[in-house]
Amino acid sequence: MKHELIIIGADAAGLTAGIYAGRKKVETLILTKKMGGQALLTDSMENYPGFLKVSGLELINKITEQVKKFEVPIEEDEVISVSGKIGNFVVKTKEGKEYTAKKILVASGSRWRPLNVPGEKEFMGKGVSVCTICDAPFYSDKAVAVVGGGNSAFESVRDLLAYARKIYVLQHSEKFKGDELFLEELKKEKKVEFITMAETKEIRGDKLVEGIVFEDLRTGENKELKVNGVFVNIGRIPNSSLVKDFVELNKYGEIVINSRTNETSVPGVFAAGDVSDTRYKQFVIAAAEGAKAALSATDLRVD
Amino acid sequence: MKHELIIIGADAAGLTAGIYAGRKKVETLILTKKMGGQALLTDSMENYPGFLKVSGLELINKITEQVKKFEVPIEEDEVISVSGKIGNFVVKTKEGKEYTAKKILVASGSRWRPLNVPGEKEFMGKGVSVCTICDAPFYSDKAVAVVGGGNSAFESVRDLLAYARKIYVLQHSEKFKGDELFLEELKKEKKVEFITMAETKEIRGDKLVEGIVFEDLRTGENKELKVNGVFVNIGRIPNSSLVKDFVELNKYGEIVINSRTNETSVPGVFAAGDVSDTRYKQFVIAAAEGAKAALSATDLRVD
Repeated sequence: MKHELIIIGADAAGLTAGIYAGRKKVETLILTKKMGGQALLTDSMENYPGFLKVSGLELINKITEQVKKFEVPIEEDEVISVSGKIGNFVVKTKEGKEYTAKKILVASGSRWRPLNVPGEKEFMGKGVSVCTICDAPFYSDKAVAVVGGGNSAFESVRDLLAYARKIYVLQHSEKFKGDELFLEELKKEKKVEFITMAETKEIRGDKLVEGIVFEDLRTGENKELKVNGVFVNIGRIPNSSLVKDFVELNKYGEIVINSRTNETSVPGVFAAGDVSDTRYKQFVIAAAEGAKAALSATDLRVD
Repeated sequence: MKHELIIIGADAAGLTAGIYAGRKKVETLILTKKMGGQALLTDSMENYPGFLKVSGLELINKITEQVKKFEVPIEEDEVISVSGKIGNFVVKTKEGKEYTAKKILVASGSRWRPLNVPGEKEFMGKGVSVCTICDAPFYSDKAVAVVGGGNSAFESVRDLLAYARKIYVLQHSEKFKGDELFLEELKKEKKVEFITMAETKEIRGDKLVEGIVFEDLRTGENKELKVNGVFVNIGRIPNSSLVKDFVELNKYGEIVINSRTNETSVPGVFAAGDVSDTRYKQFVIAAAEGAKAALSATDLRVD
């Protein structure tokens, strides 16, 4: 059976697309590696409109319930490739299945590049954060560490300035990759301390984060900083490999979209959320992008 | 006192912008004619991610609570003009006050063009709808009337096809203004009946809508159709008069924005939501546009 629309991914973007397609009675299948995406890493979201405080899991569960109400099926199977053309796309999955669809919406999200050090996974949401915009307000008068040396690390520092008492910035090499002007501005702040040639080794704590251990690459010595928060900002990896030889990606591996219509470089293929080149990666923005993409896909007539 | 940012409007876009600006600790004032905007016309929203069903009023109240938590003040006073330039904008209100701000975010929304006939106001949300995407699913197996002859009326008809038993389309003139191809497609549908030269006179009912009365302009005779729903699609008016001689508007009177950054034609002035030229006017999309615009405004440094 050829589907009218296949949505790849079931995070904020893919699920909201499911709601909109379902309400339009467009026959739709959602295929996803797993439910929820990056949002599941967030224990407490305070910036999603409608909830003073909500966990990523709770919000994803609520939205999934809405998708089910409109009878859009969701299958947990990872898509590994998309081929074909408008009216006749072929989607292959890890479990070896093949699906066909007239139109495709890629909403496979992104993942944070992990430090891969002891303590990182254990304390995720308990002092380790990958979303400073979301979590900075929880660190009023605390000492925190930001790991990373690019603009996203700098943005992280700026977002923490209004809250944290002390901010250490740990960068593994000698130089920073972010904008010089931005760096200069941050260097004026007394509470910010930049530490270069610092390779993060471990995040320590009991129930919550209490410290970060790094190797001073100049001396080989291990050092520990007492912090309550560690913000990991060493990059984001868009989950775009499934379409890497199929649609246009930018240099960060994000799918290039028309930001009004969510069209990609291939007619009939739409993209939404963190896998695309939207400027800001936020839950409410990804949800809205999913809605827009589903409406654009619906408006496109394919016989 | 010069404000860092003034947000004009307190609907989905303006309030969400308030949340994001507040969390960034950007000193912000929200000025609005009234709270909530068009969303207040919706008794039951089923497509806002996170709620199986929620009224516009309830959702606006929840979001307002979030804005207050981040200590962003809201003043109810209608903005009548914006002038000046980046770093030094002057905002004038109906009550005769003047405010100054470094940056401006216009989120003043839009309003539906009303029919101005008896019954329209009384039955709003009780059979009279201005949002077909929102309300079509409530009219399963019902007879409904769509008033209007442009593409938005046609879209309304298409959204109703999957639900309604019978759809009358009432257009006051002899011809339709929407796309011919779109019209032809809808004419193939047996359940759709097009009535031209029909001027709506009254919407009738008891507690809920029961019928619509129109004058047949060819004969001068009044006729009544038994319907449970009336979808008013005679156009939308963006609330852009306050900036009409200040920023670029499109032919519909919507503020032209860069859809990645929400910048308008005037540096330092951003716009978001239904007052802007976004393709789809939906609550979740307006909220996300507010978030984007607030983040862009925050990223812009003005000394």
